[in-house]
Amino acid sequence: MPRITQLLHRAVQINPRGTATICGERIHDYHTVADRIARAASALHRLGCQPGDRVGILALNSDRYYEALFACAWGNFIFVPVNTRLAPPEIVYWLSDSGCTALFIDDAFVPALPAIAPEVPSLRHIIHIGDAPCPAGLHAYEALLAAAPPMPDRCGSGDDIAGLFYTGGTTGRSKGVMLSHTNIVLNAINTLGGARFSSRPVYVHAPPMFHIADATLTFLCTTLAAKQIFMPRFDPAAFLRLVAEHRVTDALLVPTMVNMVVNHPEVTQHDLSSLTNCVYGASPMPDAVIRRAMAVMPHSGFTQAYGQTEAAPVLTLLGPEEHGTSPGQQRRMRSAGRAVSGWEVRIHDEHDNEVPRGTVGEVCGRGPCMMRGYWNQPELTANTLRNGWLHTGDGGYMDEDGFVYIVDRLKDMIISGGENVYSAEVEEAVYSHPAVAEAAVIGVPDPKWGERVHAVVRCKPGMDLDEAALIAHCHTRIAGFKCPRSVGFTETPLPLSGAGKILKTELRRPFWATETRQVH
Amino acid sequence: MPRITQLLHRAVQINPRGTATICGERIHDYHTVADRIARAASALHRLGCQPGDRVGILALNSDRYYEALFACAWGNFIFVPVNTRLAPPEIVYWLSDSGCTALFIDDAFVPALPAIAPEVPSLRHIIHIGDAPCPAGLHAYEALLAAAPPMPDRCGSGDDIAGLFYTGGTTGRSKGVMLSHTNIVLNAINTLGGARFSSRPVYVHAPPMFHIADATLTFLCTTLAAKQIFMPRFDPAAFLRLVAEHRVTDALLVPTMVNMVVNHPEVTQHDLSSLTNCVYGASPMPDAVIRRAMAVMPHSGFTQAYGQTEAAPVLTLLGPEEHGTSPGQQRRMRSAGRAVSGWEVRIHDEHDNEVPRGTVGEVCGRGPCMMRGYWNQPELTANTLRNGWLHTGDGGYMDEDGFVYIVDRLKDMIISGGENVYSAEVEEAVYSHPAVAEAAVIGVPDPKWGERVHAVVRCKPGMDLDEAALIAHCHTRIAGFKCPRSVGFTETPLPLSGAGKILKTELRRPFWATETRQVH
Repeated sequence: MPRITQLLHRAVQINPRGTATICGERIHDYHTVADRIARAASALHRLGCQPGDRVGILALNSDRYYEALFACAWGNFIFVPVNTRLAPPEIVYWLSDSGCTALFIDDAFVPALPAIAPEVPSLRHIIHIGDAPCPAGLHAYEALLAAAPPMPDRCGSGDDIAGLFYTGGTTGRSKGVMLSHTNIVLNAINTLGGARFSSRPVYVHAPPMFHIADATLTFLCTTLAAKQIFMPRFDPAAFLRLVAEHRVTDALLVPTMVNMVVNHPEVTQHDLSSLTNCVYGASPMPDAVIRRAMAVMPHSGFTQAYGQTEAAPVLTLLGPEEHGTSPGQQRRMRSAGRAVSGWEVRIHDEHDNEVPRGTVGEVCGRGPCMMRGYWNQPELTANTLRNGWLHTGDGGYMDEDGFVYIVDRLKDMIISGGENVYSAEVEEAVYSHPAVAEAAVIGVPDPKWGERVHAVVRCKPGMDLDEAALIAHCHTRIAGFKCPRSVGFTETPLPLSGAGKILKTELRRPFWATETRQVH
Repeated sequence: MPRITQLLHRAVQINPRGTATICGERIHDYHTVADRIARAASALHRLGCQPGDRVGILALNSDRYYEALFACAWGNFIFVPVNTRLAPPEIVYWLSDSGCTALFIDDAFVPALPAIAPEVPSLRHIIHIGDAPCPAGLHAYEALLAAAPPMPDRCGSGDDIAGLFYTGGTTGRSKGVMLSHTNIVLNAINTLGGARFSSRPVYVHAPPMFHIADATLTFLCTTLAAKQIFMPRFDPAAFLRLVAEHRVTDALLVPTMVNMVVNHPEVTQHDLSSLTNCVYGASPMPDAVIRRAMAVMPHSGFTQAYGQTEAAPVLTLLGPEEHGTSPGQQRRMRSAGRAVSGWEVRIHDEHDNEVPRGTVGEVCGRGPCMMRGYWNQPELTANTLRNGWLHTGDGGYMDEDGFVYIVDRLKDMIISGGENVYSAEVEEAVYSHPAVAEAAVIGVPDPKWGERVHAVVRCKPGMDLDEAALIAHCHTRIAGFKCPRSVGFTETPLPLSGAGKILKTELRRPFWATETRQVH
């Protein structure tokens, strides 16, 4: 019966008057934050939200985002963190699919509300958590808190669904990953046991809070009663300033953020010596970038985390002792590390038999952090969790010492700037252009984004299309981060497999020729 | 659905050919140990054991004890580790109360079998795990393993009962604490996250393996794929030799063991520099002993663990950063530390309201490691777990920073002249006298005070101390009403329980012989 709120209760016990959240000028201690959360839960209850109701959060990072997450856990509502980079039709899909009855929203997204709210029939209450004056028709967050007496923690079962984290759909549509309180709490504690966090961290929420990676730190930092600082959007210069100003001790960054930080012209002008634990993950890390990071932050240990939303998310960790220049370390730094405690990780063949060490198969995992399933998708759930194992869809092998090497994303996911982009969804947008005859979307190496979304296109005979026009077309269909950043045109048919599927390995080859180790 | 065997599966994945167990001349790697465990489970199955059946283990520490524990988890049998210091009638009670159908036994206990086996009607199979030839009528362990094909892990629910740990013999009949797989696995992972274990420990099973304290390390070390060394019985000289020989990195010792080790004449003759993490707990640690330990093992961090079997067992930890000589550290070293992640710990009044910080009440906890209950004792279970909280029976208070100070087992409290006297506090004062080697403070009947504070003391060899001098010394440390009013000196070591705790029941007995009703 682990519950997310137990992490908060512990923080209040061990550090009631210590600073919990710093968001610009707004600073709260843990005792106050817990009171505000109890009031926010009470406010949702008074608005009519029932246990199990879904509550969306569409906002940049802030202390109120943090309070909204915990208020849902407190009242046994299900939070639905929404990707802030989605186009309105996609937001509508997430909110409708999950059936959200309430939505927290901040100033950045108020302008999009007219395109969203009328399209989500279940939505009854919109709560404004921004700093600007509350728009008409919305509930003002601070006024709700002031009016609502704190309610007791509802303390349900650990198996209750705590949140829906949407992840890109291979067939175009996103699907809601149901994570229970147990899933989320154990992920935090497993990660705590596997990495070398400070005993009382000072942490900056640099990645977006809707992402499961930052969510891991949200819960882990809470159980450690950490000081948590919120930056609305990631910015490397601001990040460097915050680290120096607040003596930040622990950080989580996706590789593109690490790249931006360590190559920032101001990186040597700030005192980063407080930073002793840097966790990175969510996409492959180019070797040059991690080497540079180790050089400019010599006081810090580095830990790579690998996982996926369905695993809540951490499956493996590669710790500081594996980051170095010995031949063994150089080899292991190309791996994703070893199973975190609480997970069994194996490499399976298509019949779920373990393959010999060194043989490529599908990375599978089993443990108490395995998702409860996909929201309203029992068949897909049964297939993904078949035989009691979570099937990640990632291809990899394991060495004799249990280090996992990811070689391919079986589901053709592209990870660009830490965001998952599913090629099928992009291909759908590309194909929707009337001039396109045939198209495939792949990830290609990119110095800034790790991977870049690239489309290979054959036009219909006699029709003409250029790169800019096709990209502009895609922007009318899908979020900007999913759109191709480059397009290659060809006049010959795309290579097909015997089963008639486009052989993406053939298309990728020229791009990855010099960087085969980082191919997924 | 955490399962104990998942810890072992992980170890096999990450360290299949690394040494798992060293027991005298017998050395096995993790791959082999897992195979032996799968065969031992299969052997139990072939003998007719059904899932849920209880299987006793009555043996000194060994690799086969380890295999027996995991074989039960593998086959979904319930292990019942038996205290090795019990008299045969007490062993009979444990085995009968739990209804064991099978029993693992080693050479040390074979002589007691005629007094035990006929008295336990449920017992059908006795498996000999000793090194001597197998006695007639018993199953030889290695022969069973050779004959049984390995069976697949039964993989039940995390809520299944994994083990019965009997406790509470000091206050009457022992009771079986039912711990689930989830309880046990999460306790290991919580402890891992809270203390600073080596990433690949070398550990000596020095405390008896039947005790929940060593069991914590059994499971924690397995998930880390540690090298585990077994010493049949604790002996300080042998412990020192093993640490030096195997470069032991992590240790768990009860305070009496720490006392024996750090005051051993050979302590400075061995290289203990490999030992970097020393966990102690299970009873109060006199300040002089931990100071001495810190002095003779300067390379080691020290972590105090506090808990009880019903908590699976760890509730709070006091880490290395709180062990030192600053005023704050000196104050905090008298505490038991703060709630481990995954637990909420509070101090309650008799209505389960939290008392103000600094006020003494009952230490209570809530979290996923809370026992499933007492075997066949639903009323006692309901009372101990009332209102959703585990009631430890320990008196304590919490400071503003969440540090818990145990003032005494409520059951051990002495009430003298209407004043509550906590024996741990008095013992601290007695131990601070330089001539004291070992001491225990108990309440004894007194015509004037109801109960009188009485100390039983063994002096260091060659040192002299009389009653008046010791009482005068205590008066310089604690309030007059808390000071011993009488002192008994002994030259023999104080009687210890199997877990290494001083058996106060033994010390009280002569005083209370005619007034048994008033025993606490």
